[in-house]
Amino acid sequence: MTATAEQFTVRHRETLDRALQAIRERAFWTPYPEMPKAYGEQAAADGKAAYDGYLGGPFPLTQPGTDELVGAEKSPYGLDLGVTYPHPDLDVLLPAMQAAMPQWRDAGPDARATVLIEALARLNARTNEIAHAVHHTSGQAFGMAFQAGGPHAQDRGLEAVAYAYAAQTAQVAAAEWEKPQGPKPALKMAKKFTAVPRGIGLVIGCNTFPTWNSYPGLFASLATGNAVVVKPHPNAILPLAITVAVLRDTLAEAGFDPNLVALAVEKPGEGLAKVLATRPEVRVIDYTGSTEFGQWLERNAPQAVVYTEKAGINTVIVDSVADDYKGMLGNLAFSFSLYSGQMCTTPQNIFVPRDGITVAGEHKSFDDFASDLAGAVEKLLGDDARANALLGAVCNAGVSERLKQAESVGKTVLASRTVANPEYPDAQVRTPLIAAIDAADTAVYTGEWFGPISFLIAADSTDAAIETFRKTVSEHGAITASVYSTDDDVIAKTEDAALDAGVNLSVNLTGGVYVNQSAAFSDFHATGANPAANSALSDLAYVANRFRVVQSRRHI
Amino acid sequence: MTATAEQFTVRHRETLDRALQAIRERAFWTPYPEMPKAYGEQAAADGKAAYDGYLGGPFPLTQPGTDELVGAEKSPYGLDLGVTYPHPDLDVLLPAMQAAMPQWRDAGPDARATVLIEALARLNARTNEIAHAVHHTSGQAFGMAFQAGGPHAQDRGLEAVAYAYAAQTAQVAAAEWEKPQGPKPALKMAKKFTAVPRGIGLVIGCNTFPTWNSYPGLFASLATGNAVVVKPHPNAILPLAITVAVLRDTLAEAGFDPNLVALAVEKPGEGLAKVLATRPEVRVIDYTGSTEFGQWLERNAPQAVVYTEKAGINTVIVDSVADDYKGMLGNLAFSFSLYSGQMCTTPQNIFVPRDGITVAGEHKSFDDFASDLAGAVEKLLGDDARANALLGAVCNAGVSERLKQAESVGKTVLASRTVANPEYPDAQVRTPLIAAIDAADTAVYTGEWFGPISFLIAADSTDAAIETFRKTVSEHGAITASVYSTDDDVIAKTEDAALDAGVNLSVNLTGGVYVNQSAAFSDFHATGANPAANSALSDLAYVANRFRVVQSRRHI
Repeated sequence: MTATAEQFTVRHRETLDRALQAIRERAFWTPYPEMPKAYGEQAAADGKAAYDGYLGGPFPLTQPGTDELVGAEKSPYGLDLGVTYPHPDLDVLLPAMQAAMPQWRDAGPDARATVLIEALARLNARTNEIAHAVHHTSGQAFGMAFQAGGPHAQDRGLEAVAYAYAAQTAQVAAAEWEKPQGPKPALKMAKKFTAVPRGIGLVIGCNTFPTWNSYPGLFASLATGNAVVVKPHPNAILPLAITVAVLRDTLAEAGFDPNLVALAVEKPGEGLAKVLATRPEVRVIDYTGSTEFGQWLERNAPQAVVYTEKAGINTVIVDSVADDYKGMLGNLAFSFSLYSGQMCTTPQNIFVPRDGITVAGEHKSFDDFASDLAGAVEKLLGDDARANALLGAVCNAGVSERLKQAESVGKTVLASRTVANPEYPDAQVRTPLIAAIDAADTAVYTGEWFGPISFLIAADSTDAAIETFRKTVSEHGAITASVYSTDDDVIAKTEDAALDAGVNLSVNLTGGVYVNQSAAFSDFHATGANPAANSALSDLAYVANRFRVVQSRRHI
Repeated sequence: MTATAEQFTVRHRETLDRALQAIRERAFWTPYPEMPKAYGEQAAADGKAAYDGYLGGPFPLTQPGTDELVGAEKSPYGLDLGVTYPHPDLDVLLPAMQAAMPQWRDAGPDARATVLIEALARLNARTNEIAHAVHHTSGQAFGMAFQAGGPHAQDRGLEAVAYAYAAQTAQVAAAEWEKPQGPKPALKMAKKFTAVPRGIGLVIGCNTFPTWNSYPGLFASLATGNAVVVKPHPNAILPLAITVAVLRDTLAEAGFDPNLVALAVEKPGEGLAKVLATRPEVRVIDYTGSTEFGQWLERNAPQAVVYTEKAGINTVIVDSVADDYKGMLGNLAFSFSLYSGQMCTTPQNIFVPRDGITVAGEHKSFDDFASDLAGAVEKLLGDDARANALLGAVCNAGVSERLKQAESVGKTVLASRTVANPEYPDAQVRTPLIAAIDAADTAVYTGEWFGPISFLIAADSTDAAIETFRKTVSEHGAITASVYSTDDDVIAKTEDAALDAGVNLSVNLTGGVYVNQSAAFSDFHATGANPAANSALSDLAYVANRFRVVQSRRHI
């Protein structure tokens, strides 16, 4: 190991140990502050300048096998980024990546983990720069892009590093085995156990959370000794290009081959993800996106271990509310609105008994609840500046088209309005649409309506709502679920249904924790137990099959 | 939990803790003695009587949905067992198994592990009975059937239970999360984490090691909360029927639904494994057998997590030997002979430099080494009684056919002979065939010749042998590999090639440890890193994806 790598190992050992404790104990912890002021007075201006410096030119990244420069990102806020990136000749790039692996493998789990934590620390220091890149590719409002694209993504990266380390060190690196043989001398063997990588990992990025959804797979595969090729969404390249550049620099400084990480940007219509996913060198795949392509990957890349997060129908069951009705309405309104509902965790199906609910002991009709919920959203987004800061911009035309289509579904309880954005007049900023439908309208609500679209679904009863929840989520998947009830029996029944359907449940959220947000080191994101995802971020199953253990034994 | 289940938990807690220590430390440990005398004076007679009691009648097993009795096992020692078993109506059996799961899930990892350890203790007490069943279905000699079919299989079952417990308890069952909010009150949440099963596990047994190769998947799936349907090889049903019966009894006594485990025996030509593997209820599959069917399962059961052990080309590299040449020859001869080479771990490809090797500093030609090795096998098997005790019987006609075919391959260094078995005159007992070929004859040695067939392959040099080893095992797979050299540099190069090819390596075996045997709690069986298997027995990756974690959170 080089002196620099050793320095990183000493510097970050404590963070690694603390992260290992966190993934076991699952209490609150993060090493990466989410408040901008924690980054110092100069950070905002420096980050903006760094971001601006990328615009309109080739991104500074030199990789083997670059055959041309490509890229045509257009910000949801209306600007062309004009940045170009290396397009790879895979027959040159992939062998160079393979050649980088043996040294990385031989360095062992401790060196890999701490070099990667150094890279995360550097990414953390560049949070403002990354925030601008995420803001202008995903359409997330800047405040959200800062947190979700910066520290929260870095948390998920570190969490994956910790799990990878824990899995690789689940057994000793060397052992002596001594088997008694009765009166004869014991048999004695010395054994070594080495974690070996599978091969090249492929991370396929998404448009909406280019860093948050990519960091777990990226860091998990690297920490387990694999090289990783990152194929970003064509409209969200810059955040991952910065990430790849930081990783390559950190690896090189530590004495490793920077080709352990590479960016692979596609030409328009090239379908590079499919090409990469079926290359024999690619042995691990991480993907976030459509159910259709996720299933294609699960079935057409048998040479690789495939981790997918796909679409789902996130569900809320409303039965009864104690005294904080306002808190409950505000909590739901926020979850509908954040990033215009363009989150895989945004609630879509809100089951409400058609005969109404109980609020602080009083009956409230379905229609009154619908009206109160609509009012809470209107109040939350009444001020345009605040609305812009919460909603961000619509990231693609599909969302606007679905909003149009939803106008004719059921009875519109709250129409979506377009919010003016004085800074970026071309941005499409849309408030949530809420439509009331019936539990019989299964064709409507058993598919995902990605975007700010939610359905209030009239159910025969709370019990009927729970059964429909169990069935629809088992069959169609969900990343999140929540229930509101003052009745312990209803909560227990919903928890039981959530275990059967395999979905994480939030109970009676009224305060500053939202069903569409998960906290790294404590909340698992997705479960891998329903069709919305075949894995969770992060857990042992997410890392344990990215490497294999190979042993060598000899007589002593 | 019932009083009986609590009793099991108290009784076996120490064994579980000791097993958890063993899988981390990987030193020698086993709770199940491998010496027959440890089982008491009466055990042999009782076991034989119990085995005899099964012959010629219906096996005592009552399961839901039994539509007829089937079974036509014929012992490789020439007897018809005449035992019949339940054939299932899957539309009745599988729903009954599903209905059994929620209670098992809710019992939690501790109860599941200790109830299963109780079942293993009962299986251990019936080792003699199981040994006869394994002997008369696999053809293993009785002594081997006793050890491999009894305590060694039980070890692998307990190892899987320990890994499953470790993975499920990698995080706390409940946590409090408290996030500071500056001057405002902290956000506080209470969280629960529950391991939930995937669904029904399917274990597809093999002919040669009905218990040893089935117990890891069977116990791993059960310990993680799944129900398991066991589909035995049509000629090796009885050992697994006894196992299923013991498990069902233990579960019922502990207050659980015995339908958590069921036997599914097929009618001739029914192809029940394919039918079961594609049922939507089946979510985990464990398989040992042919590459062809293993790959079929990996590609045609996308609803399930699939663990396979398939064919491989186990390799030995001979470069040089120090003073214990006799020990080396004897060690190899034993590995070729044990159970007539009908092990997935038997060495097949023995690379030897065509210019010869160095023995105790003296040159020895390729032909002299071949002759010495042939002599060692002849010496080992010269006495018919000893030969019968080592070789066992050929388990199917395919092995005899391959022996015939191998007679015309290369130059026969040692011909296979048929050993008379006075007790069972119909048994096919065959000694190993060794043929000398050239490294250019790749078509011969890049496929598996299952049975007592080994090739001495003349290589251009030790380095060339190492390169061919790296390439052929990477491409065609292997479960085992070994190297003989007095040169540290050769050993290091071979270890490096073994890491690249992803195969476990034994170095300079001369004593009572054989390349075709692995010790539970210390040696990993297979690696999952080459085409011979996609998993290892057992490790974290083998258990971590058999369950998923589902959480529930609420404000405090």
